[in-house]
Amino acid sequence: MNREGLEKILRSLAEGTVDVEEAMRRLRHFPYEDLAFARLEHHRSLRQGVPEVVLARGKRAEDTVAIARAMYRESGRLLVTKAPPEVFEKLGMEEAAYHRASGLIMAGEAAAKTGSVLVVSAGTSDIPVAEEAALTASFLGSRTKTLYDVGVSGIHRLMEKRGALEEARVLVVVAGMEGALPSVVGGLTSRPVVAVPTSVGYGASLGGLTALFAMLNSCVPGIAVMNIDNGFGAGCLAHRINTLEPPAAETP
Amino acid sequence: MNREGLEKILRSLAEGTVDVEEAMRRLRHFPYEDLAFARLEHHRSLRQGVPEVVLARGKRAEDTVAIARAMYRESGRLLVTKAPPEVFEKLGMEEAAYHRASGLIMAGEAAAKTGSVLVVSAGTSDIPVAEEAALTASFLGSRTKTLYDVGVSGIHRLMEKRGALEEARVLVVVAGMEGALPSVVGGLTSRPVVAVPTSVGYGASLGGLTALFAMLNSCVPGIAVMNIDNGFGAGCLAHRINTLEPPAAETP
Amino acid sequence: MNREGLEKILRSLAEGTVDVEEAMRRLRHFPYEDLAFARLEHHRSLRQGVPEVVLARGKRAEDTVAIARAMYRESGRLLVTKAPPEVFEKLGMEEAAYHRASGLIMAGEAAAKTGSVLVVSAGTSDIPVAEEAALTASFLGSRTKTLYDVGVSGIHRLMEKRGALEEARVLVVVAGMEGALPSVVGGLTSRPVVAVPTSVGYGASLGGLTALFAMLNSCVPGIAVMNIDNGFGAGCLAHRINTLEPPAAETP
Amino acid sequence: MNREGLEKILRSLAEGTVDVEEAMRRLRHFPYEDLAFARLEHHRSLRQGVPEVVLARGKRAEDTVAIARAMYRESGRLLVTKAPPEVFEKLGMEEAAYHRASGLIMAGEAAAKTGSVLVVSAGTSDIPVAEEAALTASFLGSRTKTLYDVGVSGIHRLMEKRGALEEARVLVVVAGMEGALPSVVGGLTSRPVVAVPTSVGYGASLGGLTALFAMLNSCVPGIAVMNIDNGFGAGCLAHRINTLEPPAAETP
Amino acid sequence: MNREGLEKILRSLAEGTVDVEEAMRRLRHFPYEDLAFARLEHHRSLRQGVPEVVLARGKRAEDTVAIARAMYRESGRLLVTKAPPEVFEKLGMEEAAYHRASGLIMAGEAAAKTGSVLVVSAGTSDIPVAEEAALTASFLGSRTKTLYDVGVSGIHRLMEKRGALEEARVLVVVAGMEGALPSVVGGLTSRPVVAVPTSVGYGASLGGLTALFAMLNSCVPGIAVMNIDNGFGAGCLAHRINTLEPPAAETP
Amino acid sequence: MNREGLEKILRSLAEGTVDVEEAMRRLRHFPYEDLAFARLEHHRSLRQGVPEVVLARGKRAEDTVAIARAMYRESGRLLVTKAPPEVFEKLGMEEAAYHRASGLIMAGEAAAKTGSVLVVSAGTSDIPVAEEAALTASFLGSRTKTLYDVGVSGIHRLMEKRGALEEARVLVVVAGMEGALPSVVGGLTSRPVVAVPTSVGYGASLGGLTALFAMLNSCVPGIAVMNIDNGFGAGCLAHRINTLEPPAAETP
Amino acid sequence: MNREGLEKILRSLAEGTVDVEEAMRRLRHFPYEDLAFARLEHHRSLRQGVPEVVLARGKRAEDTVAIARAMYRESGRLLVTKAPPEVFEKLGMEEAAYHRASGLIMAGEAAAKTGSVLVVSAGTSDIPVAEEAALTASFLGSRTKTLYDVGVSGIHRLMEKRGALEEARVLVVVAGMEGALPSVVGGLTSRPVVAVPTSVGYGASLGGLTALFAMLNSCVPGIAVMNIDNGFGAGCLAHRINTLEPPAAETP
Amino acid sequence: MNREGLEKILRSLAEGTVDVEEAMRRLRHFPYEDLAFARLEHHRSLRQGVPEVVLARGKRAEDTVAIARAMYRESGRLLVTKAPPEVFEKLGMEEAAYHRASGLIMAGEAAAKTGSVLVVSAGTSDIPVAEEAALTASFLGSRTKTLYDVGVSGIHRLMEKRGALEEARVLVVVAGMEGALPSVVGGLTSRPVVAVPTSVGYGASLGGLTALFAMLNSCVPGIAVMNIDNGFGAGCLAHRINTLEPPAAETP
Repeated sequence: MNREGLEKILRSLAEGTVDVEEAMRRLRHFPYEDLAFARLEHHRSLRQGVPEVVLARGKRAEDTVAIARAMYRESGRLLVTKAPPEVFEKLGMEEAAYHRASGLIMAGEAAAKTGSVLVVSAGTSDIPVAEEAALTASFLGSRTKTLYDVGVSGIHRLMEKRGALEEARVLVVVAGMEGALPSVVGGLTSRPVVAVPTSVGYGASLGGLTALFAMLNSCVPGIAVMNIDNGFGAGCLAHRINTLEPPAAETP
Repeated sequence: MNREGLEKILRSLAEGTVDVEEAMRRLRHFPYEDLAFARLEHHRSLRQGVPEVVLARGKRAEDTVAIARAMYRESGRLLVTKAPPEVFEKLGMEEAAYHRASGLIMAGEAAAKTGSVLVVSAGTSDIPVAEEAALTASFLGSRTKTLYDVGVSGIHRLMEKRGALEEARVLVVVAGMEGALPSVVGGLTSRPVVAVPTSVGYGASLGGLTALFAMLNSCVPGIAVMNIDNGFGAGCLAHRINTLEPPAAETP
Repeated sequence: MNREGLEKILRSLAEGTVDVEEAMRRLRHFPYEDLAFARLEHHRSLRQGVPEVVLARGKRAEDTVAIARAMYRESGRLLVTKAPPEVFEKLGMEEAAYHRASGLIMAGEAAAKTGSVLVVSAGTSDIPVAEEAALTASFLGSRTKTLYDVGVSGIHRLMEKRGALEEARVLVVVAGMEGALPSVVGGLTSRPVVAVPTSVGYGASLGGLTALFAMLNSCVPGIAVMNIDNGFGAGCLAHRINTLEPPAAETP
Repeated sequence: MNREGLEKILRSLAEGTVDVEEAMRRLRHFPYEDLAFARLEHHRSLRQGVPEVVLARGKRAEDTVAIARAMYRESGRLLVTKAPPEVFEKLGMEEAAYHRASGLIMAGEAAAKTGSVLVVSAGTSDIPVAEEAALTASFLGSRTKTLYDVGVSGIHRLMEKRGALEEARVLVVVAGMEGALPSVVGGLTSRPVVAVPTSVGYGASLGGLTALFAMLNSCVPGIAVMNIDNGFGAGCLAHRINTLEPPAAETP
Repeated sequence: MNREGLEKILRSLAEGTVDVEEAMRRLRHFPYEDLAFARLEHHRSLRQGVPEVVLARGKRAEDTVAIARAMYRESGRLLVTKAPPEVFEKLGMEEAAYHRASGLIMAGEAAAKTGSVLVVSAGTSDIPVAEEAALTASFLGSRTKTLYDVGVSGIHRLMEKRGALEEARVLVVVAGMEGALPSVVGGLTSRPVVAVPTSVGYGASLGGLTALFAMLNSCVPGIAVMNIDNGFGAGCLAHRINTLEPPAAETP
Repeated sequence: MNREGLEKILRSLAEGTVDVEEAMRRLRHFPYEDLAFARLEHHRSLRQGVPEVVLARGKRAEDTVAIARAMYRESGRLLVTKAPPEVFEKLGMEEAAYHRASGLIMAGEAAAKTGSVLVVSAGTSDIPVAEEAALTASFLGSRTKTLYDVGVSGIHRLMEKRGALEEARVLVVVAGMEGALPSVVGGLTSRPVVAVPTSVGYGASLGGLTALFAMLNSCVPGIAVMNIDNGFGAGCLAHRINTLEPPAAETP
Repeated sequence: MNREGLEKILRSLAEGTVDVEEAMRRLRHFPYEDLAFARLEHHRSLRQGVPEVVLARGKRAEDTVAIARAMYRESGRLLVTKAPPEVFEKLGMEEAAYHRASGLIMAGEAAAKTGSVLVVSAGTSDIPVAEEAALTASFLGSRTKTLYDVGVSGIHRLMEKRGALEEARVLVVVAGMEGALPSVVGGLTSRPVVAVPTSVGYGASLGGLTALFAMLNSCVPGIAVMNIDNGFGAGCLAHRINTLEPPAAETP
Repeated sequence: MNREGLEKILRSLAEGTVDVEEAMRRLRHFPYEDLAFARLEHHRSLRQGVPEVVLARGKRAEDTVAIARAMYRESGRLLVTKAPPEVFEKLGMEEAAYHRASGLIMAGEAAAKTGSVLVVSAGTSDIPVAEEAALTASFLGSRTKTLYDVGVSGIHRLMEKRGALEEARVLVVVAGMEGALPSVVGGLTSRPVVAVPTSVGYGASLGGLTALFAMLNSCVPGIAVMNIDNGFGAGCLAHRINTLEPPAAETP
């Protein structure tokens, strides 16, 4: 259930078309849908600003599909991450789109976009994770741009794009190998920076741990770090920040 | 050099009291102050929204003091982190305050506070890091509150404080040991959550790595994670988010 | 050889139908059955309260089947863990049941159930391990219930089920990713809690080590921790605890 | 607040000497005592079967003492773990006892003991942790015995004590270095075994991680494992198991 | 080139059938056979007591076969380890034997056996590595026996075989999971013990590192430890020890 | 109790000066001496060829001294490892010698030496561990020589000493940093090689783990590896091998 | 764009056939070629002495091919590393050569070779990485030789080749397992040594980390270390050093 | 013995003032000086281009001093690294200089300097290691400059110094925390870059491992990486490269 669904119920109540008991009954009724193996929680979009999402990795395709359908039926929105093509095929849902590079399946994307999120990435191999972040933030309702392949080994490429960095309200920076890009970008902006390490690299890259640790130790204070390859989480956080309403007028 | 210093120069230029060459000269002149061993960069507060900070850990007290003085002389602000009492004593600066629990030395704190940052912590031993985060955000100009000792082993204590969680614009959540608190807090709010693992614990807590990894793997999407014990970084990030101006009116 | 088999021999001895030498001979004779490559030890069910179990992972299917048959022939019970479908097919044993999600093969399950074990799990992907625990405890003779998909990101789902938590004598709590659920559950009950980390997650979840370490560092004192994905072990421990006879009447 | 305190209130209510409002007020009132830096939670002994405990490690002595006093004032019980002598001296509490080897401070120990917990340890250097476990279980009300210095390098020493192993209802097994003792003990009993790795050893013992991992991989199914050096936790778990009331009479 | 080959040359020299130059030429000539990609070193059997061995793992089958053939041609002996069936098939050498469980290919095994090496293993899954050790020692010329499936969870099985332990001159002990068996065996004998950890286990067994570290930390002094799954190395070491000639008569 | 003590009892029995009961009583009586905190086991020298040893590291000096005295009283031999000077002073035993570099305390060293053990070390900083190995082997009764400071960076120094390598029956090779020396030495001898990694080095030497892992992965088959800094264990193993009696004459 | 391309433009400018604006336009124009997903940077060969290279590992074959073609079109050179045969086939470029062992695809190799680089390797399995290094250095224009299969277990093989070591200006030393070869080689030469660890080995070789750490801890000062299996990087560094022009004549 | 010493002997031989036997005797005679515990090897300066160096860390001050004196007596040069002030005081050598920040003791520094080495460092805390590198290279005879405090968080500081980067023949880049500086510098030069990670940082910096791994995974091909804090090694390597004589004229 999305936020709109909830507001409709409450507005009906405020307008007197339903009474309190009925409102209570509806609210109680629909948050959970028991699939025997997974309790969908449709209240979450209310609480956390993001809809329930299905992580396909580690689940059998059949289970992913069953959960995804139930979710879409209730909320009219759907976001599946790390999905192999097989899941999209089994889902067989016309209204859904599948982004092969990122493995995202989406339906019910927010129509209106607001603010500005810029997703920056270091190397070609980092693009799938960068796309996951950009598509997620856009799906949730953030206006999103991308700036790819501006790794630190050719620092002038990044410097030439300083304008783009300065225009963004929130930046997501994606990098594998030595994970140095967030530090450089973070030194060029006063806006929040969300860093995403990727598993790109080999040997001493330790499956992305090296990039992760590098980002946690950035000499720029206040870089937000995500799990390895977690483009989805970065998109969520960027959206949360990007859509934070301004503080209320204050009185001393 | 703080933002005010820069604006003064630019305004003088706009008003014609200095010409362009002079303005250039002044700008060029003061950003660096060569201490032979450390280039202070006073432009950073412009670029990154936070002033230069001195990390006392790993430096000799004499060096920390010399850098701190130069920084304060130029910018009128001073923030030293992880400082043992010895540094504060050697600094001998009347206008500075020292917070023993967090090891922060501060001078030139922002007078006006805005927005709202809530710092939540799990156990008594996590308080020094939580204080570092709260004092940093406040120093930079964020209105800050704290909610301590609401660890997950007594979940009702946290539930009783849901009101406080909902009022905050940005939340900093500090926890050691199993590092579970950010997941629970993150499930109760739609606002950005900054998680700080601490080195509290022993044995398999691995000096805080366990809490760090737990937070990176939170089942709540979009938690921002900081380095172990990095309260200062969390305060910076929370302030960056808290003071992000609203997006400009948009045209399709 | 199960407990009943042993008692039969001893009772025969007590009743004089066999003499001591013959009893000795029988006891000596049947505990080991030499399969050339594996000594079955049928005495274990006596000593440890659980029958010999075959871990199929890391064995060739042929070997697993041969050991399983010999075990069933001697003891009338069979428990194989982490078995792929191929093993069950090669086994071709009508009286055995195969649980695909958990990979358990069972035959000779205890008919009477006693006490109460509650298996709680965090996410959908944790269910195979939770099932392994629940089925094992039930097989051994514990009355078992399950409560799935109550992860800490939606803490109210768990709070609504507090009644179920309070009714259980022993709780098994299964969670991957940040592994926070045992701490929250452990804070809500005074009964023994057995925590099982799973390998669910990616990147910094380190194949389950993060959840494992988090559980070992729980801020709730006295959580029992098992190896990663070790649902079988959790079921055994829960059963051992659940069926512990009450202390004998005591005299000061 | 201990269990007795709570029962007194409830009984007063049942007997009509206080009314519901007053009972509510008292219950609401005393569970928390705000020390500014630590919320004591006296309800925990109700919920978890163990009183609040103070972990002295990582806290300043002053803070430990302040928390300990408040706790004792409210509940009449006190348990401080990993306390250096300095804490005990600063506490200056006549009714408290200090066990130097284990670092425990105790007051208000349970008078009546029940059941039987046996604490087994491998080497001389493991004794402090073993004592922490034994004293904790005894403090909480379990009858406790110890069997020290029966490491696996001299297996006959352990075999000679099989009688003691068989008499215990719950066993705590403490070992450092290769951590092999729980497997051997676990093979000799059908009762629950709680394994505690210690940081005894050097080099590849990795501060106790080797013993910890060894215990998690025990070939005996169902060993409960605790964090490194966590004798207190082991004592709690053993007590929880030892005092588990028998299952209610059941109806099919 | 085996020892016999060398002796033949030297004896020819001693007997005058070749002169020094010719002997030098022959010795110089045959030690290396250049396969373009691998220098076989036939002198090694002289220097190290073991012939050159080919580790098939990590090599293309074609390369393994080419090296193996050249080696056999020169020395009349062949030992290939960790060989998949494909290598044996491609080798197509009638005089070679292939042991599927251990992955050893052997030809030219020593006919006479001496001394006594006992290979002990813990679980069924450890047998392939145990076989690798036993077959290697036997191939090199040690009389070898095996005692399998005597893991520490059923300590009496091992105790019943104390006689076999006492008869052996050198013991190889193979175990995965917690790796405890070498400590127990080492406590029952005064002979050299060679411990081999295996990668048997899952989760916190860390691919055999847990067993490896446990063995390195054995409380029995003087256990010799090998790399994970290195049965071949254990067989070599056991043979080196087993065939060490007695010290020469000594004079004070 | 040493081997001589035992033989005296048995011989008295054989000669009729004591009867079986008395012999049994004596044997039963003296193996254990209960120090309340540590069971000395004097039978070990019989079973394992080495006397009980006290590891001083991790024990309080008082405890070490108490155990050491009891041990010496019973067996007439004493070996304490990793002992700081304080322990030797508190021990105050005239007949004991203290070797400061290695931290060994010894009394009752074997008078007659046999065979030959050569201890080789790489760098100056490795000498304390090398001395621990050499003194231990000598204490137990092996004739021992040393060859220090022949690290692989100056390979010709080692090559010049090939004669010494060839004369030894057993070699102990001690090295820190990259731990390469055992591979080079192992390639130059056919005798058993015992490798001891040391914690010498910094940064990526990981406290000796790098040398340890390097030795476990030696390209020379059959190197015996010990725990980091475990010179004592190496001395024991070298002695066990060095004093292995020749195999009995064999019959086909 | 290679160096020649740039010089052509600049020479045209110097000769007056183009004016400054046109030169600027051309320079600006061609460095980037937008493939939508990857910005090729043809300026790099100028800045870093090596052309842009494509790492095939972790990319889809289609993407690798598209980038490779664009790169070759612009610069007339092509270097693809870690390429499976599939990439070479899809590339379908007649002028390119594919080296199966190393996985390199090359076109436009430098015709003239200078200086001397010697690539030394330890075992047969290390050859693919050694070839990657040798072919890369040669491709870039260094005269290159190889010396394979001279591992430290047969140190005399290396000693016999000391002449080759002394003739080389730069040495690349490739080794897996214990990674000892660079230390030995480094002790025999005064020239720069580039060490490359490989992932050859199993168990405690930790996928090459053991060799990597060993090389970082070499007792020979000044060994340059590369990432695991990074033959390409070693070839680049060796070429950079080998072609460093002599220092300009100096004036005090 | 330094290179001059050797040349003197050889020249005497060439000039007939000594004969071959005498020359041999002298060469044989002086390379080793037996200090009982450390064989000084004065030939190394010949073979490796750097004199023998004493690593003070991990040695007792007395031993360091004894070795240092012997070395200076023989060769007229002295380099001690990681020396605490105590060592310098005990050394009491007038002709030696002590650099407190880097812990270097030097005597006999090369008078003539050649080429150009530039040492670049990221933060103030990295300076001691940077100084160790710069002083070492200078001591050996390289002309050396430094450029400190140009970390990646303020990338324009580095860009302003591009001229200095381009002038250097060899660059040493020193950085802690995320270790990103070598990648950025490496992208701006075609000269060899030597990267030195430092242990500066806390938490997830893992004592410098994070910076080390980041440098090994640099996206710039061909960065030479040293052990953590190994400024001395970097100075040696930079000097070896800087003083490499040009290749001889070549013939096709």
